[in-house]
Amino acid sequence: MNRNFTSDNVTPACAAVMAAVNAANAGGVPSYGGDELTARLEARVAEVFETTVSVYPVATGTAANALALAQLSPPYGGVYCYEAAHIATDECGAPGFFAGGAVLLGLPAADGKITAAQLATAIEHAHSMGVHHVKPAALSLTQATEWGTVYSCAELAALTAVAEQHGLPVHMDGARFANALVRLGCSPAEATWKRGVDVLSLGATKNGALCAEAVVFFDPALAENFERRRKRAGHLWSKLRFLSCQLLAYLEDDLWLSNARQANTAATRLAEGLADVAGARVLQPVDANEVFVAPPEKLAADLEEAGFHFYRWPLCPVEEGVAVRLVTSYATTAEDVEDFLREARKLA
Amino acid sequence: MNRNFTSDNVTPACAAVMAAVNAANAGGVPSYGGDELTARLEARVAEVFETTVSVYPVATGTAANALALAQLSPPYGGVYCYEAAHIATDECGAPGFFAGGAVLLGLPAADGKITAAQLATAIEHAHSMGVHHVKPAALSLTQATEWGTVYSCAELAALTAVAEQHGLPVHMDGARFANALVRLGCSPAEATWKRGVDVLSLGATKNGALCAEAVVFFDPALAENFERRRKRAGHLWSKLRFLSCQLLAYLEDDLWLSNARQANTAATRLAEGLADVAGARVLQPVDANEVFVAPPEKLAADLEEAGFHFYRWPLCPVEEGVAVRLVTSYATTAEDVEDFLREARKLA
Amino acid sequence: MNRNFTSDNVTPACAAVMAAVNAANAGGVPSYGGDELTARLEARVAEVFETTVSVYPVATGTAANALALAQLSPPYGGVYCYEAAHIATDECGAPGFFAGGAVLLGLPAADGKITAAQLATAIEHAHSMGVHHVKPAALSLTQATEWGTVYSCAELAALTAVAEQHGLPVHMDGARFANALVRLGCSPAEATWKRGVDVLSLGATKNGALCAEAVVFFDPALAENFERRRKRAGHLWSKLRFLSCQLLAYLEDDLWLSNARQANTAATRLAEGLADVAGARVLQPVDANEVFVAPPEKLAADLEEAGFHFYRWPLCPVEEGVAVRLVTSYATTAEDVEDFLREARKLA
Amino acid sequence: MNRNFTSDNVTPACAAVMAAVNAANAGGVPSYGGDELTARLEARVAEVFETTVSVYPVATGTAANALALAQLSPPYGGVYCYEAAHIATDECGAPGFFAGGAVLLGLPAADGKITAAQLATAIEHAHSMGVHHVKPAALSLTQATEWGTVYSCAELAALTAVAEQHGLPVHMDGARFANALVRLGCSPAEATWKRGVDVLSLGATKNGALCAEAVVFFDPALAENFERRRKRAGHLWSKLRFLSCQLLAYLEDDLWLSNARQANTAATRLAEGLADVAGARVLQPVDANEVFVAPPEKLAADLEEAGFHFYRWPLCPVEEGVAVRLVTSYATTAEDVEDFLREARKLA
Repeated sequence: MNRNFTSDNVTPACAAVMAAVNAANAGGVPSYGGDELTARLEARVAEVFETTVSVYPVATGTAANALALAQLSPPYGGVYCYEAAHIATDECGAPGFFAGGAVLLGLPAADGKITAAQLATAIEHAHSMGVHHVKPAALSLTQATEWGTVYSCAELAALTAVAEQHGLPVHMDGARFANALVRLGCSPAEATWKRGVDVLSLGATKNGALCAEAVVFFDPALAENFERRRKRAGHLWSKLRFLSCQLLAYLEDDLWLSNARQANTAATRLAEGLADVAGARVLQPVDANEVFVAPPEKLAADLEEAGFHFYRWPLCPVEEGVAVRLVTSYATTAEDVEDFLREARKLA
Repeated sequence: MNRNFTSDNVTPACAAVMAAVNAANAGGVPSYGGDELTARLEARVAEVFETTVSVYPVATGTAANALALAQLSPPYGGVYCYEAAHIATDECGAPGFFAGGAVLLGLPAADGKITAAQLATAIEHAHSMGVHHVKPAALSLTQATEWGTVYSCAELAALTAVAEQHGLPVHMDGARFANALVRLGCSPAEATWKRGVDVLSLGATKNGALCAEAVVFFDPALAENFERRRKRAGHLWSKLRFLSCQLLAYLEDDLWLSNARQANTAATRLAEGLADVAGARVLQPVDANEVFVAPPEKLAADLEEAGFHFYRWPLCPVEEGVAVRLVTSYATTAEDVEDFLREARKLA
Repeated sequence: MNRNFTSDNVTPACAAVMAAVNAANAGGVPSYGGDELTARLEARVAEVFETTVSVYPVATGTAANALALAQLSPPYGGVYCYEAAHIATDECGAPGFFAGGAVLLGLPAADGKITAAQLATAIEHAHSMGVHHVKPAALSLTQATEWGTVYSCAELAALTAVAEQHGLPVHMDGARFANALVRLGCSPAEATWKRGVDVLSLGATKNGALCAEAVVFFDPALAENFERRRKRAGHLWSKLRFLSCQLLAYLEDDLWLSNARQANTAATRLAEGLADVAGARVLQPVDANEVFVAPPEKLAADLEEAGFHFYRWPLCPVEEGVAVRLVTSYATTAEDVEDFLREARKLA
Repeated sequence: MNRNFTSDNVTPACAAVMAAVNAANAGGVPSYGGDELTARLEARVAEVFETTVSVYPVATGTAANALALAQLSPPYGGVYCYEAAHIATDECGAPGFFAGGAVLLGLPAADGKITAAQLATAIEHAHSMGVHHVKPAALSLTQATEWGTVYSCAELAALTAVAEQHGLPVHMDGARFANALVRLGCSPAEATWKRGVDVLSLGATKNGALCAEAVVFFDPALAENFERRRKRAGHLWSKLRFLSCQLLAYLEDDLWLSNARQANTAATRLAEGLADVAGARVLQPVDANEVFVAPPEKLAADLEEAGFHFYRWPLCPVEEGVAVRLVTSYATTAEDVEDFLREARKLA
């Protein structure tokens, strides 16, 4: 029984991805992306997203996000995002490093979702400040968000409309994009470029890969010289096929979606079950695979004592109890969830 | 028969490394290097190098080199190196990017090996220029060099003595360190920190791994905050065990040395055999796994026509013929070499 | 009559400073700070601040602040400041640029003054995040603040004590330091290094100079290599005496203090007079030379119509009227103030 | 008598420039370049260069050069220049800092003038290296060169034709542009944009100003967002009129040309006179205001003993004697030159 709910990155790679890595281990293969698997990946992503794309596999989400933002923002630019977005709080300043000192312009949001009105106001303020303010350069949205919520297609469209009106390209941090997509129930295209998204960090590591994310440009013109950014950041593998094959397997037979569905279902069930646990108030809508809940301090401690792992979330203000985050994954079984709920009910 | 001599990065991962990757695929493992394999790696490298070390696995040589140099040089610093070092010519400006604009100060060298006297003169000139010149900050040596030669221990000691005298820490780009070590026939310690090397980029990708290099600090105090540099560059994997396990396997049972020996032997045999090929002059001492040779243009073209792959090396000035580079690897067999020589003799 | 209250940077240089510039125009003078005036400046600042100092004149406040912060924070660091500090909102990202991607960590404050408790909480949070968060690197305080308020010596001591406890050096943005000092009524030493300040951006441009600020390190060891940072930023003048002479004149005969006193007195009188103007609520304590006031929209427009210049301050939330900022300077006369008040009363 | 020949930056500001600074000292003037003098400057430069321009005054040559290059080169780019160009050797890495890690690609040249053929070869090599090499991004030429020579209009045209063919914009470091222009005897337009130059660092500090250089874009479209680069580098003065007025005076009544003519004439006379000094071989054509000469070591030392100041130039290889640099300026009189020659003849 798996009692680790700290993150979806504590998972193993799933069987299909491991098989692909083993299968990719041939010799005499052209290096630096000149291989066949990498070529097939771009074609496959184009098929999945129903449009021409430029695709750049990298090993980490931080690399994907920071490289993408550096491509969108000049060094004297600002990137609008939720003030506690992963790019702002968990990447040790990577966006500013990759983008030569560009800054993140954080906007507050109780549920992790910023609004079109906020964005419009912020851009207008920037323009009124002229040369003293960084240039409004891009919008970055996390989907699913840091609070396990999901932007609806309408919310996305409203935000990207403001961005487009001011000439700002739009980045989506999709470390958990598959989880959001399953929730939205629409096509990948409808969830991204048809809603105004220009570049997607498509995550796989949290949802079944060893180490694979893809920077996907829906407008190849936006990707000009991106390959040099990747190279000089040390993110171009000589044996790139070992990244590409993971992403190919990930997209094969809808593996990404079935994995994400498993994770989301577990989270939904977890949240539902917590309704029966005295004092364990769920703090946010559970749209994807994260549950934020505020059990009494004693219950949290007792669960930890019982061998469950999860993070306390001190920055989340709660009136009573202690905020904790429970993350499910493709590897979370119904039994894992029942095990947690059973113990929680018992200890409550 | 393998007819690809373009680079040692066109190789597959070797069996022991692949087995280790598969074995590392457990779940519930702490992320970001909190796992047991990563802990074992540091202990293992300490054992191999007979000293306390701080070890940071990354996926590419460019990342290892650029992160190491950024740690050694302030943004207003200069790093002395061979003017056509890999860091200067093949990494798309990565050192300057990672080190915030620091510059590489290239010194000429016919065989890829700079000298202590050159270094001393250059540092003195810098001091005479004062604040107008970047601050002499570090020395970077490639071992084995870009020309397939190897610094002797005495040459290393002379260079690092000058560096130490001026307070410059020393980095070694060891993308092919195992090849050099086998050539030197000394211990890893004698080839590095006992000769004044402070930080080593220890390569494995070219010698049997999928994607693994390690930044090895022989003085852990020099590594202060290095983990943040790695994180913000997107080079900290959440599932770091998949990198660590490769390096563990690489160092197990002297795999790295037997692999390198295979590659070196093939190169030596290749160079020897070329002596019998009319007009194919070997241009540099073959100390490791690279052979630079200047066959007549027609012979080079005929070999390519026959299915052999190798790079032309136009920057290498030759009076007659065309300079080409032949790289052998752990996967190059005696038969591969004989095949090449047989064809070369036939076509010459 | 001067009706321009937009900023203290619309002023001329005062007579003593202009005289010094003209007097400095000799030939055959050593360049790049090797001149006598620059040497005298360092000695004079040491005298004024009663301690050993390292002093670096530059032409703008943005240069002084960004260079100082780059000296204090590594590129993977974070600098705590008020969320709407000048360095965060008015310098087009200069701190991130100079510090290689370091980020500003903004804390909210209704009156522009952050508190020791806020700082302690923020640093603790950073430590709990480990390598994913930028390293807490420095504290930057604006004195006088962006809202025309002034930190008391006790407030400064409390803040710098928290910083010191966590090993963070402290920067003070003193674009209006003289205005704050006059308000505090203590010695320069008591307002800075005796209260835990390590580096001061000492402004002169807003208070009587053409273009002169000084970066003052109270611990010369902290200034190591700072001269190279200044040089590579293009802020080392070849004829540096033309900057040094301005600062010498500024500190001569307490010119800086008498100029600041004039500005502060004008602001205080302006605020007092506004009490008699119907509906013109003063929004912040007037500790220095800035008055934030919220007249009815019509009154603001009528004053502009009458030839007065000032900035609207839309980010300042007011329940009624419109927030505007009135800035006085050393060149603001009692008549200028009376003129404004007379018109305001008339138009109200 | 002025015996200081170290540099043209040890000069005072000339009378007309000082008068302009004094005259600019009005109050109530709009800040940050909103003033009338700055507007007039742009119009005046357009008139002088007979084309539409965007003009940005800054205080130092390093700022002008590094800002211009950052505008032309992406952070993953390379700028071709003479390997010992001022930007490469005397600005403490400023171009790499401002351009986010971009690198200078130095080409050798015995007289400081690189050739079109060299440039073409270097660009072709870069293209053959693909993503591993920085992207060829710009060409930077120093005019007059670091060796006191001057590119002819034909040489410029050949170089910029290669650059244009490969899409590289061209920067001219004109710290001594007026000296070159006087030598060429053509119009400012013919020496710049009509010969393919896109951006000029127009120097004034060495030729009569206190501290003033102008970045001149001959294609305003190339200057997009340049104002934000200047601001975030701390090079936008609040009282910008004090820079603009210097440049206006500099261009008034051909002051820049008459000053440069004075300097050049002195250098020419110096070189001619040295023909009569035993053993003092002039090393380079004297096209502008610098004389490189190799007197016997004893003569050099005796001249220093006699109170003359000049720099030894150790990087200049001479077979006999010691290389020294003598720089004349607008303030060098015929008497100063005769004084030097008389002593030299006497001591030789």
